[in-house]
Amino acid sequence: MKIAQIAPLMESVPPRLYGGSERIVSYLTDELVRAGHDVTLFASGDSVSSARLVPCVPIALRLDANVRDPIPYYMLMLDRVRERVDEFDILHFHIDQFHFPLFRPIAQRTVTTLHGRQDLHDLKPLYVGFSEMPLVTISNAQRKPIPNANFVATVYHGIPAQLLKPNYRPRGNYLAFLGRISPEKRPDRAIRIARALEIPLKIAAKVDKVDEAYFREKIVPLLNQPGVEFIGEIDERAKSEFLGDAAALLFRCGSVPEIIDHGVTGLIVGAMDEAIRMVPEVLALDRRAVRQRFDQRFSAARMAKDYVHVYRSLLKRPALPERETALPRLQPELEKGMN
Amino acid sequence: MKIAQIAPLMESVPPRLYGGSERIVSYLTDELVRAGHDVTLFASGDSVSSARLVPCVPIALRLDANVRDPIPYYMLMLDRVRERVDEFDILHFHIDQFHFPLFRPIAQRTVTTLHGRQDLHDLKPLYVGFSEMPLVTISNAQRKPIPNANFVATVYHGIPAQLLKPNYRPRGNYLAFLGRISPEKRPDRAIRIARALEIPLKIAAKVDKVDEAYFREKIVPLLNQPGVEFIGEIDERAKSEFLGDAAALLFRCGSVPEIIDHGVTGLIVGAMDEAIRMVPEVLALDRRAVRQRFDQRFSAARMAKDYVHVYRSLLKRPALPERETALPRLQPELEKGMN
Repeated sequence: MKIAQIAPLMESVPPRLYGGSERIVSYLTDELVRAGHDVTLFASGDSVSSARLVPCVPIALRLDANVRDPIPYYMLMLDRVRERVDEFDILHFHIDQFHFPLFRPIAQRTVTTLHGRQDLHDLKPLYVGFSEMPLVTISNAQRKPIPNANFVATVYHGIPAQLLKPNYRPRGNYLAFLGRISPEKRPDRAIRIARALEIPLKIAAKVDKVDEAYFREKIVPLLNQPGVEFIGEIDERAKSEFLGDAAALLFRCGSVPEIIDHGVTGLIVGAMDEAIRMVPEVLALDRRAVRQRFDQRFSAARMAKDYVHVYRSLLKRPALPERETALPRLQPELEKGMN
Repeated sequence: MKIAQIAPLMESVPPRLYGGSERIVSYLTDELVRAGHDVTLFASGDSVSSARLVPCVPIALRLDANVRDPIPYYMLMLDRVRERVDEFDILHFHIDQFHFPLFRPIAQRTVTTLHGRQDLHDLKPLYVGFSEMPLVTISNAQRKPIPNANFVATVYHGIPAQLLKPNYRPRGNYLAFLGRISPEKRPDRAIRIARALEIPLKIAAKVDKVDEAYFREKIVPLLNQPGVEFIGEIDERAKSEFLGDAAALLFRCGSVPEIIDHGVTGLIVGAMDEAIRMVPEVLALDRRAVRQRFDQRFSAARMAKDYVHVYRSLLKRPALPERETALPRLQPELEKGMN
């Protein structure tokens, strides 16, 4: 299949540091190439990919100190994609909604992965107005604020099987918190759980500018307690060791019930006392079974297969006559196949 | 002629309070209707116009407390314009660059007025990449940072002849400063000039959030002097009286040499001592001659006529073959006719 991947321009593909969407585009693109597809990647010029790269800006916009406004670069990128649109069977967009007006006439040859939060007021009219643009969510939880948008599938993120090495005999007797310091991630609760059990906690997390006050006022005072260690942000390589050596990971997020197989890869708890009570049970989980489930559900190869399934299903659809474009959901059966 | 005017969505057309671009779109649209053209205005739903209004959002985005991100609304607006594109001879855009990728294939039927500053790094590649999109500047000074863009004319703003009443016997013995408190507008110099001559100065200006520190630290201390009065922001009606009663207006801006007819409608000065020395000469200018020059050069009717000239010249052009689109300037003779 001839596939265009249209990546965000803020970070390179893959990103040098953070940048979740660009990392996923990188894994997906490389897997699609490995599976024999003809893939063209529209991305920043400092991207590295086994696909054919079409550089749309010289370097990632976030690394270019002169860049204030990213929008002109996205307009130029869309123009380059448009010029070559006939070369592709399918165009897979990862750039929010910039492409909607331009590519609406060939909606059935496009798919858009929603990488961000969808609970923003301003997005609601967008998915009504562009109801025939096929959308992929990265979790079912992500759909809640826009239940009637034109979803064709949920495709969970996958990562290369060899990226994080499994470790069946963790050396660290610590609980891990990984991600971002912010109120909704509840690092304070992770600290409380670890302190209640007197198990050390290691916090590997970045602090965004918007969260600096929260970090300083709410979290820093808690870091003085025994057994609580803040190690800041870590890169991909350090992550493998940090997670591999951890006794367990504490995590709070909307899509957890979809990601975790309760009793196999983790335990989903409600209240704090339950969380504290259940930690020993988490520590006793079979780590080989956890890894096996990862290989089944969250490898980059699985993600690429799911997306190819989405592409093929879209291409099998007849081009939509105008009157059908208002249908809120086009193919519920396709979604079923994906999940 | 069948004309589409595509206005910004931040303010209504005309705006209730500030909003320079939307005000100009309003004056232009109403004049075009008066001249017998068939005009459709794409704008916020609270706009008021003698043209056919296509409401693209219910109310101006700046007045909608729920709106965080204006981009989705512009995408929806572009889609509405696209749907009806065949109804128009010419499409006149006032929304920066959002429409460039979508309307590039019919570039010769579009014109884009640049309402903002063009000295931003991120705009340079845009005008190279979309070199066939015809652009109108609102002054020649505005072109300096992007000299090779595809300019087809400079069209100076015009306002309705009856908006500001001429006053040939001003009652106020004061100098006026009108606009915005910010370092580049040099209100401090206006104060120095007025103080040096011991003529009262009235400052009617808004203070934007970004300029609050400048206002507090640099300007407020100067307001304690005798004869310096800060009256804040004023509306259109108050402007007529404020300007009509003023002995003269002090102004500093990039396009002044284009706007002022030196010795007729004002005096253009370089250094501060020259400014102070020349004020009496400004006070002696013939106010009827000033008004006459305004009627000739800056009425809304003149602005509309200029734009119709631009529209007609664009429509006379043959559709551009690809190789010609790289020409830096397409019709210098058209520009000459405009200025």
